[in-house]
Amino acid sequence: MMLCDIGNSNADFYQDGKVWTLSHKEFEHFTPKEKVYYICVNDPIQKRLKTKELFIDLEPYFEFDTIYQGMGIDRIAACYTIKDGMIVDAGSAITIDIMSAGMHLGGFILPGLSAYEKGYASISERLKMPLNPSIALDALPQKTSDALSYGVIKSIITLLEITCKDKRIFFTGGDGKFFSKFFSNAIFDRTLIFRGMLKVIQEAHLD
Amino acid sequence: MMLCDIGNSNADFYQDGKVWTLSHKEFEHFTPKEKVYYICVNDPIQKRLKTKELFIDLEPYFEFDTIYQGMGIDRIAACYTIKDGMIVDAGSAITIDIMSAGMHLGGFILPGLSAYEKGYASISERLKMPLNPSIALDALPQKTSDALSYGVIKSIITLLEITCKDKRIFFTGGDGKFFSKFFSNAIFDRTLIFRGMLKVIQEAHLD
Repeated sequence: MMLCDIGNSNADFYQDGKVWTLSHKEFEHFTPKEKVYYICVNDPIQKRLKTKELFIDLEPYFEFDTIYQGMGIDRIAACYTIKDGMIVDAGSAITIDIMSAGMHLGGFILPGLSAYEKGYASISERLKMPLNPSIALDALPQKTSDALSYGVIKSIITLLEITCKDKRIFFTGGDGKFFSKFFSNAIFDRTLIFRGMLKVIQEAHLD
Repeated sequence: MMLCDIGNSNADFYQDGKVWTLSHKEFEHFTPKEKVYYICVNDPIQKRLKTKELFIDLEPYFEFDTIYQGMGIDRIAACYTIKDGMIVDAGSAITIDIMSAGMHLGGFILPGLSAYEKGYASISERLKMPLNPSIALDALPQKTSDALSYGVIKSIITLLEITCKDKRIFFTGGDGKFFSKFFSNAIFDRTLIFRGMLKVIQEAHLD
Protein backbone atom coordinates (compact mmCIF):
# COMPACT_ATOMS: atom_id res chain seq x y z
CA MET A 1 0.00 0.00 0.00
CA MET A 2 1.35 3.40 -1.01
CA LEU A 3 0.56 6.60 0.90
CA CYS A 4 1.14 10.15 -0.29
CA ASP A 5 0.94 13.48 1.58
CA ILE A 6 0.95 16.44 -0.80
CA GLY A 7 1.96 19.64 0.96
CA ASN A 8 2.73 23.20 -0.08
CA SER A 9 6.30 22.40 -1.19
CA ASN A 10 6.54 18.66 -1.89
CA ALA A 11 4.78 15.33 -2.12
CA ASP A 12 5.91 12.88 0.57
CA PHE A 13 5.48 9.15 -0.03
CA TYR A 14 5.33 6.18 2.34
CA GLN A 15 5.46 2.49 1.57
CA ASP A 16 6.42 -0.43 3.85
CA GLY A 17 8.12 1.88 6.36
CA LYS A 18 10.11 3.70 3.67
CA VAL A 19 9.67 7.43 3.12
CA TRP A 20 10.66 9.51 0.08
CA THR A 21 9.87 12.90 -1.42
CA LEU A 22 9.05 14.27 -4.87
CA SER A 23 8.93 17.94 -5.81
CA HIS A 24 5.60 19.17 -7.19
CA LYS A 25 7.20 19.14 -10.65
CA GLU A 26 8.40 15.54 -10.27
CA PHE A 27 5.00 14.57 -8.89
CA GLU A 28 3.33 15.84 -12.07
CA HIS A 29 5.13 13.13 -14.04
CA PHE A 30 4.49 10.40 -11.48
CA THR A 31 2.17 7.65 -12.78
CA PRO A 32 1.33 5.03 -10.16
CA LYS A 33 0.92 1.36 -10.99
CA GLU A 34 -1.06 0.67 -7.82
CA LYS A 35 -3.55 2.46 -5.56
CA VAL A 36 -2.17 5.60 -3.87
CA TYR A 37 -4.00 6.71 -0.73
CA TYR A 38 -3.41 10.42 -0.45
CA ILE A 39 -4.17 13.67 1.34
CA CYS A 40 -3.55 17.05 -0.30
CA VAL A 41 -3.57 20.70 0.83
CA ASN A 42 -2.61 22.08 -2.58
CA ASP A 43 -5.80 23.11 -4.41
CA PRO A 44 -4.61 22.86 -8.06
CA ILE A 45 -3.03 19.42 -7.49
CA GLN A 46 -6.11 18.24 -5.58
CA LYS A 47 -8.33 19.22 -8.53
CA ARG A 48 -6.12 17.25 -10.92
CA LEU A 49 -5.97 14.12 -8.71
CA LYS A 50 -9.74 13.97 -8.35
CA THR A 51 -9.94 12.81 -12.00
CA LYS A 52 -7.32 10.05 -11.62
CA GLU A 53 -8.53 6.57 -10.89
CA LEU A 54 -5.65 5.11 -8.83
CA PHE A 55 -5.54 8.09 -6.44
CA ILE A 56 -7.84 7.70 -3.44
CA ASP A 57 -8.42 10.81 -1.34
CA LEU A 58 -8.49 9.90 2.38
CA GLU A 59 -9.81 13.29 3.52
CA PRO A 60 -13.52 12.28 3.60
CA TYR A 61 -12.78 9.33 5.88
CA PHE A 62 -11.22 11.24 8.80
CA GLU A 63 -13.52 11.60 11.81
CA PHE A 64 -11.91 14.28 13.89
CA ASP A 65 -13.34 16.00 16.97
CA THR A 66 -12.68 19.75 16.68
CA ILE A 67 -14.45 23.09 16.42
CA TYR A 68 -11.52 24.48 14.41
CA GLN A 69 -12.77 25.75 11.04
CA GLY A 70 -10.91 24.84 7.87
CA MET A 71 -8.16 22.80 9.52
CA GLY A 72 -5.75 21.46 6.88
CA ILE A 73 -6.08 17.71 6.33
CA ASP A 74 -2.33 17.27 6.95
CA ARG A 75 -2.77 18.77 10.44
CA ILE A 76 -5.74 16.50 11.09
CA ALA A 77 -3.70 13.46 10.01
CA ALA A 78 -0.76 14.51 12.21
CA CYS A 79 -3.08 14.80 15.25
CA TYR A 80 -5.09 11.68 14.42
CA THR A 81 -3.02 9.16 16.39
CA ILE A 82 -2.27 11.43 19.38
CA LYS A 83 -4.63 11.37 22.35
CA ASP A 84 -2.75 13.86 24.54
CA GLY A 85 0.04 16.20 23.55
CA MET A 86 1.22 19.10 21.44
CA ILE A 87 1.75 18.32 17.74
CA VAL A 88 4.23 20.46 15.81
CA ASP A 89 4.57 20.04 12.05
CA ALA A 90 7.58 22.16 11.09
CA GLY A 91 7.54 22.45 7.31
CA SER A 92 6.87 25.37 4.91
CA ALA A 93 4.62 26.61 7.72
CA ILE A 94 4.91 25.52 11.34
CA THR A 95 1.56 24.32 12.65
CA ILE A 96 1.00 23.73 16.36
CA ASP A 97 -2.01 21.79 17.66
CA ILE A 98 -3.11 20.68 21.10
CA MET A 99 -4.82 17.36 21.73
CA SER A 100 -6.36 16.52 25.10
CA ALA A 101 -8.24 13.29 25.86
CA GLY A 102 -8.66 12.68 22.13
CA MET A 103 -10.14 16.13 21.52
CA HIS A 104 -8.50 18.87 19.46
CA LEU A 105 -8.41 22.06 21.57
CA GLY A 106 -7.19 24.42 18.82
CA GLY A 107 -3.91 25.49 17.36
CA PHE A 108 -1.88 28.15 15.67
CA ILE A 109 0.54 28.74 12.83
CA LEU A 110 4.01 30.26 12.48
CA PRO A 111 5.97 30.81 9.28
CA GLY A 112 8.44 28.05 8.40
CA LEU A 113 12.15 28.90 8.43
CA SER A 114 12.34 29.78 4.73
CA ALA A 115 9.15 31.87 4.98
CA TYR A 116 10.89 33.89 7.73
CA GLU A 117 13.85 34.35 5.36
CA LYS A 118 11.48 35.62 2.67
CA GLY A 119 9.83 37.95 5.17
CA TYR A 120 13.19 39.46 6.16
CA ALA A 121 14.26 39.72 2.50
CA SER A 122 11.07 41.69 1.73
CA ILE A 123 12.15 44.41 4.21
CA SER A 124 15.64 45.27 2.97
CA GLU A 125 18.63 43.95 1.00
CA ARG A 126 20.54 44.19 4.29
CA LEU A 127 18.29 41.53 5.85
CA LYS A 128 18.49 39.14 2.88
CA MET A 129 20.61 36.29 4.23
CA PRO A 130 20.23 32.63 5.17
CA LEU A 131 19.25 31.84 8.75
CA ASN A 132 21.74 29.98 10.91
CA PRO A 133 19.73 27.44 12.92
CA SER A 134 22.67 26.60 15.20
CA ILE A 135 22.71 30.13 16.63
CA ALA A 136 23.47 30.31 20.37
CA LEU A 137 20.31 31.26 22.27
CA ASP A 138 21.92 32.00 25.63
CA ALA A 139 23.77 35.20 24.64
CA LEU A 140 22.53 38.38 22.94
CA PRO A 141 23.60 38.55 19.24
CA GLN A 142 26.38 40.94 18.22
CA LYS A 143 25.85 41.06 14.46
CA THR A 144 22.96 41.19 11.98
CA SER A 145 23.08 37.58 10.72
CA ASP A 146 22.96 36.27 14.30
CA ALA A 147 20.29 38.84 15.24
CA LEU A 148 17.96 37.51 12.52
CA SER A 149 18.53 33.83 13.38
CA TYR A 150 18.15 34.47 17.12
CA GLY A 151 14.87 36.36 16.62
CA VAL A 152 13.36 33.55 14.57
CA ILE A 153 14.59 30.48 16.49
CA LYS A 154 14.16 31.95 19.99
CA SER A 155 10.66 33.34 19.31
CA ILE A 156 9.51 29.96 17.99
CA ILE A 157 11.11 27.90 20.79
CA THR A 158 9.83 30.26 23.50
CA LEU A 159 6.24 30.14 22.27
CA LEU A 160 6.38 26.33 21.99
CA GLU A 161 7.73 26.12 25.55
CA ILE A 162 5.01 28.23 27.15
CA THR A 163 2.31 26.50 25.10
CA CYS A 164 3.27 22.88 25.82
CA LYS A 165 3.55 23.26 29.59
CA ASP A 166 4.01 19.65 30.81
CA LYS A 167 2.56 17.97 27.71
CA ARG A 168 4.56 15.67 25.45
CA ILE A 169 5.54 17.26 22.14
CA PHE A 170 5.36 15.33 18.89
CA PHE A 171 7.44 16.87 16.12
CA THR A 172 7.22 16.07 12.44
CA GLY A 173 8.05 17.83 9.14
CA GLY A 174 11.33 18.81 7.50
CA ASP A 175 12.53 20.96 10.42
CA GLY A 176 10.89 18.83 13.11
CA LYS A 177 14.08 17.00 14.06
CA PHE A 178 15.92 20.31 14.46
CA PHE A 179 13.29 21.81 16.77
CA SER A 180 12.82 18.60 18.76
CA LYS A 181 16.40 18.89 20.08
CA PHE A 182 15.43 21.91 22.21
CA PHE A 183 12.92 19.91 24.27
CA SER A 184 13.42 17.08 26.75
CA ASN A 185 9.79 15.95 26.47
CA ALA A 186 9.88 15.71 22.65
CA ILE A 187 9.42 12.88 20.18
CA PHE A 188 10.37 13.30 16.52
CA ASP A 189 8.36 11.11 14.18
CA ARG A 190 8.86 11.66 10.48
CA THR A 191 5.91 9.37 9.75
CA LEU A 192 3.34 11.00 12.07
CA ILE A 193 1.05 12.06 9.22
CA PHE A 194 1.36 8.63 7.58
CA ARG A 195 0.44 6.96 10.86
CA GLY A 196 -2.75 9.03 10.86
CA MET A 197 -3.43 7.96 7.29
CA LEU A 198 -2.84 4.29 8.11
CA LYS A 199 -5.24 4.59 11.06
CA VAL A 200 -8.03 6.02 8.91
CA ILE A 201 -7.51 3.32 6.25
CA GLN A 202 -7.90 0.68 8.96
CA GLU A 203 -10.94 2.37 10.56
CA ALA A 204 -12.71 2.76 7.21
CA HIS A 205 -11.72 -0.77 6.06
CA LEU A 206 -10.36 0.68 2.82
CA ASP A 207 -7.63 -1.88 2.26
CA MET B 1 16.14 72.75 12.81
CA MET B 2 14.76 69.92 10.74
CA LEU B 3 15.53 66.23 11.41
CA CYS B 4 14.94 63.32 9.09
CA ASP B 5 15.15 59.55 9.70
CA ILE B 6 15.11 57.58 6.44
CA GLY B 7 14.11 53.99 7.01
CA ASN B 8 13.31 51.00 4.82
CA SER B 9 9.74 52.14 4.06
CA ASN B 10 9.50 55.89 4.71
CA ALA B 11 11.27 59.11 5.61
CA ASP B 12 10.16 60.46 9.01
CA PHE B 13 10.60 64.17 9.72
CA TYR B 14 10.78 66.13 12.96
CA GLN B 15 10.67 69.88 13.50
CA ASP B 16 9.73 71.84 16.66
CA GLY B 17 8.05 68.80 18.23
CA LYS B 18 6.03 68.03 15.12
CA VAL B 19 6.45 64.71 13.31
CA TRP B 20 5.43 63.77 9.76
CA THR B 21 6.18 61.13 7.17
CA LEU B 22 6.96 61.04 3.46
CA SER B 23 7.07 57.91 1.31
CA HIS B 24 10.37 57.23 -0.47
CA LYS B 25 8.73 58.44 -3.68
CA GLU B 26 7.55 61.71 -2.07
CA PHE B 27 10.95 62.12 -0.47
CA GLU B 28 12.62 62.01 -3.91
CA HIS B 29 10.80 65.24 -4.82
CA PHE B 30 11.46 66.94 -1.49
CA THR B 31 13.79 69.96 -1.77
CA PRO B 32 14.66 71.54 1.57
CA LYS B 33 15.08 75.31 2.06
CA GLU B 34 17.09 74.82 5.25
CA LYS B 35 19.59 72.37 6.71
CA VAL B 36 18.23 68.83 7.25
CA TYR B 37 20.09 66.69 9.80
CA TYR B 38 19.47 63.11 8.79
CA ILE B 39 20.26 59.45 9.34
CA CYS B 40 19.61 56.85 6.64
CA VAL B 41 19.63 53.03 6.44
CA ASN B 42 18.62 52.90 2.78
CA ASP B 43 21.78 52.57 0.67
CA PRO B 44 20.57 54.09 -2.66
CA ILE B 45 18.99 57.12 -0.91
CA GLN B 46 22.10 57.56 1.25
CA LYS B 47 24.28 57.64 -1.88
CA ARG B 48 22.06 60.34 -3.41
CA LEU B 49 21.93 62.51 -0.26
CA LYS B 50 25.72 62.52 0.09
CA THR B 51 25.86 64.86 -2.95
CA LYS B 52 23.27 67.33 -1.61
CA GLU B 53 24.50 70.33 0.28
CA LEU B 54 21.66 70.99 2.73
CA PHE B 55 21.58 67.38 3.93
CA ILE B 56 23.89 66.71 6.88
CA ASP B 57 24.49 63.07 7.76
CA LEU B 58 24.59 62.63 11.55
CA GLU B 59 25.93 59.06 11.44
CA PRO B 60 29.65 59.98 11.83
CA TYR B 61 28.94 61.97 15.01
CA PHE B 62 27.40 59.18 17.10
CA GLU B 63 29.73 57.81 19.77
CA PHE B 64 28.13 54.56 20.82
CA ASP B 65 29.58 51.90 23.10
CA THR B 66 28.90 48.48 21.57
CA ILE B 67 30.67 45.44 20.14
CA TYR B 68 27.70 44.81 17.79
CA GLN B 69 28.94 44.78 14.19
CA GLY B 70 27.01 46.72 11.56
CA MET B 71 24.29 48.07 13.83
CA GLY B 72 21.86 50.23 11.85
CA ILE B 73 22.21 53.92 12.62
CA ASP B 74 18.46 54.13 13.40
CA ARG B 75 18.94 51.52 16.14
CA ILE B 76 21.92 53.43 17.52
CA ALA B 77 19.88 56.66 17.56
CA ALA B 78 16.97 54.93 19.30
CA CYS B 79 19.30 53.60 22.04
CA TYR B 80 21.30 56.82 22.30
CA THR B 81 19.27 58.50 25.04
CA ILE B 82 18.54 55.35 27.08
CA LYS B 83 20.92 54.39 29.86
CA ASP B 84 19.07 51.30 31.07
CA GLY B 85 16.27 49.44 29.37
CA MET B 86 15.05 47.44 26.42
CA ILE B 87 14.48 49.43 23.22
CA VAL B 88 11.97 48.10 20.68
CA ASP B 89 11.59 49.77 17.29
CA ALA B 90 8.56 48.12 15.70
CA GLY B 91 8.57 49.14 12.05
CA SER B 92 9.20 47.22 8.78
CA ALA B 93 11.48 45.10 10.95
CA ILE B 94 11.23 44.87 14.75
CA THR B 95 14.61 45.55 16.35
CA ILE B 96 15.20 44.82 20.04
CA ASP B 97 18.24 46.21 21.90
CA ILE B 98 19.37 46.06 25.50
CA MET B 99 21.11 48.98 27.22
CA SER B 100 22.70 48.62 30.65
CA ALA B 101 24.61 51.39 32.45
CA GLY B 102 24.99 53.26 29.15
CA MET B 103 26.42 50.21 27.36
CA HIS B 104 24.77 48.33 24.51
CA LEU B 105 24.67 44.61 25.40
CA GLY B 106 23.42 43.35 22.02
CA GLY B 107 20.12 42.85 20.32
CA PHE B 108 18.06 40.91 17.84
CA ILE B 109 15.61 41.33 14.99
CA LEU B 110 12.15 40.03 14.18
CA PRO B 111 10.15 40.62 11.01
CA GLY B 112 7.67 43.51 11.16
CA LEU B 113 3.96 42.69 10.93
CA SER B 114 3.73 43.13 7.16
CA ALA B 115 6.92 41.09 6.63
CA TYR B 116 5.19 38.25 8.53
CA GLU B 117 2.21 38.63 6.19
CA LYS B 118 4.54 38.36 3.19
CA GLY B 119 6.24 35.32 4.74
CA TYR B 120 2.87 33.55 5.17
CA ALA B 121 1.75 34.56 1.66
CA SER B 122 4.93 32.99 0.22
CA ILE B 123 3.87 29.58 1.61
CA SER B 124 0.37 29.21 0.19
CA GLU B 125 -2.63 31.11 -1.17
CA ARG B 126 -4.52 29.75 1.85
CA LEU B 127 -2.25 31.71 4.21
CA LYS B 128 -2.48 34.97 2.25
CA MET B 129 -4.57 37.17 4.54
CA PRO B 130 -4.19 40.30 6.67
CA LEU B 131 -3.16 39.80 10.31
CA ASN B 132 -5.61 40.79 13.00
CA PRO B 133 -3.56 42.49 15.74
CA SER B 134 -6.48 42.48 18.19
CA ILE B 135 -6.54 38.67 18.32
CA ALA B 136 -7.25 37.22 21.78
CA LEU B 137 -4.08 35.69 23.20
CA ASP B 138 -5.66 33.83 26.11
CA ALA B 139 -7.50 31.16 24.09
CA LEU B 140 -6.28 28.77 21.39
CA PRO B 141 -7.39 29.87 17.89
CA GLN B 142 -10.17 27.97 16.12
CA LYS B 143 -9.69 29.18 12.54
CA THR B 144 -6.84 29.90 10.15
CA SER B 145 -6.95 33.71 10.21
CA ASP B 146 -6.82 33.71 14.02
CA ALA B 147 -4.12 30.99 13.99
CA LEU B 148 -1.83 33.18 11.86
CA SER B 149 -2.36 36.33 13.94
CA TYR B 150 -1.98 34.45 17.23
CA GLY B 151 1.30 32.86 16.06
CA VAL B 152 2.80 36.21 15.11
CA ILE B 153 1.60 38.41 17.98
CA LYS B 154 2.05 35.84 20.75
CA SER B 155 5.54 34.77 19.59
CA ILE B 156 6.68 38.41 19.50
CA ILE B 157 5.13 39.38 22.86
CA THR B 158 6.42 36.23 24.59
CA LEU B 159 9.99 36.77 23.43
CA LEU B 160 9.87 40.45 24.48
CA GLU B 161 8.57 39.41 27.91
CA ILE B 162 11.30 36.88 28.66
CA THR B 163 13.98 39.22 27.30
CA CYS B 164 13.06 42.36 29.22
CA LYS B 165 12.79 40.72 32.67
CA ASP B 166 12.37 43.69 35.03
CA LYS B 167 13.79 46.35 32.69
CA ARG B 168 11.78 49.28 31.40
CA ILE B 169 10.75 48.91 27.74
CA PHE B 170 10.90 51.84 25.35
CA PHE B 171 8.78 51.35 22.25
CA THR B 172 8.96 53.38 19.06
CA GLY B 173 8.09 52.85 15.38
CA GLY B 174 4.80 52.48 13.52
CA ASP B 175 3.60 49.47 15.54
CA GLY B 176 5.29 50.55 18.78
CA LYS B 177 2.12 51.93 20.33
CA PHE B 178 0.27 48.69 19.59
CA PHE B 179 2.92 46.48 21.22
CA SER B 180 3.41 48.81 24.19
CA LYS B 181 -0.15 48.07 25.35
CA PHE B 182 0.83 44.51 26.30
CA PHE B 183 3.37 45.69 28.90
CA SER B 184 2.91 47.49 32.20
CA ASN B 185 6.55 48.66 32.30
CA ALA B 186 6.41 50.19 28.80
CA ILE B 187 6.84 53.70 27.46
CA PHE B 188 5.87 54.56 23.89
CA ASP B 189 7.87 57.43 22.43
CA ARG B 190 7.31 58.18 18.76
CA THR B 191 10.27 60.59 18.83
CA LEU B 192 12.85 58.27 20.43
CA ILE B 193 15.12 58.24 17.35
CA PHE B 194 14.81 62.03 17.00
CA ARG B 195 15.76 62.48 20.65
CA GLY B 196 18.95 60.55 19.92
CA MET B 197 19.61 62.76 16.90
CA LEU B 198 19.03 65.94 18.95
CA LYS B 199 21.46 64.65 21.59
CA VAL B 200 24.22 64.05 19.04
CA ILE B 201 23.69 67.49 17.48
CA GLN B 202 24.11 69.04 20.91
CA GLU B 203 27.16 66.91 21.80
CA ALA B 204 28.90 67.69 18.51
CA HIS B 205 27.90 71.41 18.64
CA LEU B 206 26.49 71.15 15.12
CA ASP B 207 23.78 73.76 15.48
